[in-house]
Amino acid sequence: MAFSLKAWSGSVLPLFEARLLSRFADARPDLLVEACRYPLQTGGKRIRPLLAFGAAEACGGSAQSALDVAVAVELLHTYSLVHDDLPAMDDDDERRGRPTVHKVYGEGVAVLVGDALLTESFAVLAEAGRAGALVRELAAAGGAKGMIAGQAYDIGMDGEIADIDRLRMLHRAKTGALIRGAVRMAAIAAGAGDAHLAALTRYAEEVGLAFQVHDDVLDADQDAARASGGPPSFVKLLGVEGARGVARAHMQAALDALGGLPRPEALAAIAIYTVERTT
Amino acid sequence: MAFSLKAWSGSVLPLFEARLLSRFADARPDLLVEACRYPLQTGGKRIRPLLAFGAAEACGGSAQSALDVAVAVELLHTYSLVHDDLPAMDDDDERRGRPTVHKVYGEGVAVLVGDALLTESFAVLAEAGRAGALVRELAAAGGAKGMIAGQAYDIGMDGEIADIDRLRMLHRAKTGALIRGAVRMAAIAAGAGDAHLAALTRYAEEVGLAFQVHDDVLDADQDAARASGGPPSFVKLLGVEGARGVARAHMQAALDALGGLPRPEALAAIAIYTVERTT
Repeated sequence: MAFSLKAWSGSVLPLFEARLLSRFADARPDLLVEACRYPLQTGGKRIRPLLAFGAAEACGGSAQSALDVAVAVELLHTYSLVHDDLPAMDDDDERRGRPTVHKVYGEGVAVLVGDALLTESFAVLAEAGRAGALVRELAAAGGAKGMIAGQAYDIGMDGEIADIDRLRMLHRAKTGALIRGAVRMAAIAAGAGDAHLAALTRYAEEVGLAFQVHDDVLDADQDAARASGGPPSFVKLLGVEGARGVARAHMQAALDALGGLPRPEALAAIAIYTVERTT
Repeated sequence: MAFSLKAWSGSVLPLFEARLLSRFADARPDLLVEACRYPLQTGGKRIRPLLAFGAAEACGGSAQSALDVAVAVELLHTYSLVHDDLPAMDDDDERRGRPTVHKVYGEGVAVLVGDALLTESFAVLAEAGRAGALVRELAAAGGAKGMIAGQAYDIGMDGEIADIDRLRMLHRAKTGALIRGAVRMAAIAAGAGDAHLAALTRYAEEVGLAFQVHDDVLDADQDAARASGGPPSFVKLLGVEGARGVARAHMQAALDALGGLPRPEALAAIAIYTVERTT
């Protein structure tokens, strides 16, 4: 295949990284600015920004038209990690090989950093065109009927997650809603019509599930114990090979949704990457 | 004086309370909806919503034009209380005579509830006219150069607050920024011109300081120990009578700022109330 995801990422991400780290320039005090930027500098996969850039291209817009959306979505995603790592939540000491925010700066600061990243995600959108529509999408994706609902299911606020339908519902909310939001917001910012927006929404819903099911496969590969104990997972319910099959099926459905779009190459490559990646 | 703040509040608040509690109708699971609504039902003073309604009236708009702003600002204020009460922050077990969110639902849920209220404050603005301008104001007031900066100073991220200038800076950020934002957003929503917006901004900055200095006076009256130990306060730096004088001076400056506005009665009454209230 002629399309290189690596080369394409290299063409769209540098400006994104610079814009992301330029945020909080007028925040205070200096230690808060430092603490807010710390979790943004982790060299994560930037899947949501890449999806946003890819969605803009897919419907005929420029990748650059999605820059504000990409920054806003990554800010919101990062806040959710900072709060999720807190002792009161998942209590994680490390993320991507570095100490978590609360281990470096303390718990109170980590609460404030998450709050600041969340607030800043909306500040970024306020500067974009179509701010009302974009803010509505981001609040729906990140709020208490989207990502936060998923977190609530995940910490057991609605009882045990013991069957595949409820596990799918959990992940549609916890990670799917923001992936869907990233793609839809980029399409809206690029001025996509209804048909393209609908196709991209279907693509995003399928990619979100492919991504999460493959995450469970990777976790199970790394730690066989998680297939039995630990949180609910697709591997626990379907076995490793069953989960691999489900991930591939969602990936194929994502590719199918791209049929009518003018420039789907980047999104197609991202869909394939979601189920072939090893980290 | 013919104007009755109590009668006026009674005319503008009932619709506000209904709209506030109607939020989270499509959130899930049910326990999260309940937990999100719990801190909104506390019978607080609703100073920020009243300032928003008063600002709309002052520049010739209807109180109703400020309804979305009032709800958004109270949601944002309430999230800040929920997170501020966490063990990692102020560690408060009670607020307004009721157990705090984390005492009732647990710490993890309290983190999520604060996140959900914050996100919802922007969702409300997305539905209003002039969404871009309103979101920009709220993010600036509530973010890391405004309220969150104030929280950061308050937990000691920039060293000790030991003189009156730094204490004023702390409160301009911690409580002043959102009071200023409430007034400015209501004026923007009401279509205020530049001169009215500038006058209302001056009013809000003075009322914010009057409110905070009087808070310190009330705290010192209730607990003489706070005048020496405890957090930095205007009473500790100026004495009770000195602080009362400063509060009155800011109140008078707030009244002076209202000179050129067509219907300043409600805002004038609120300014007087801020330094005469006993709770």
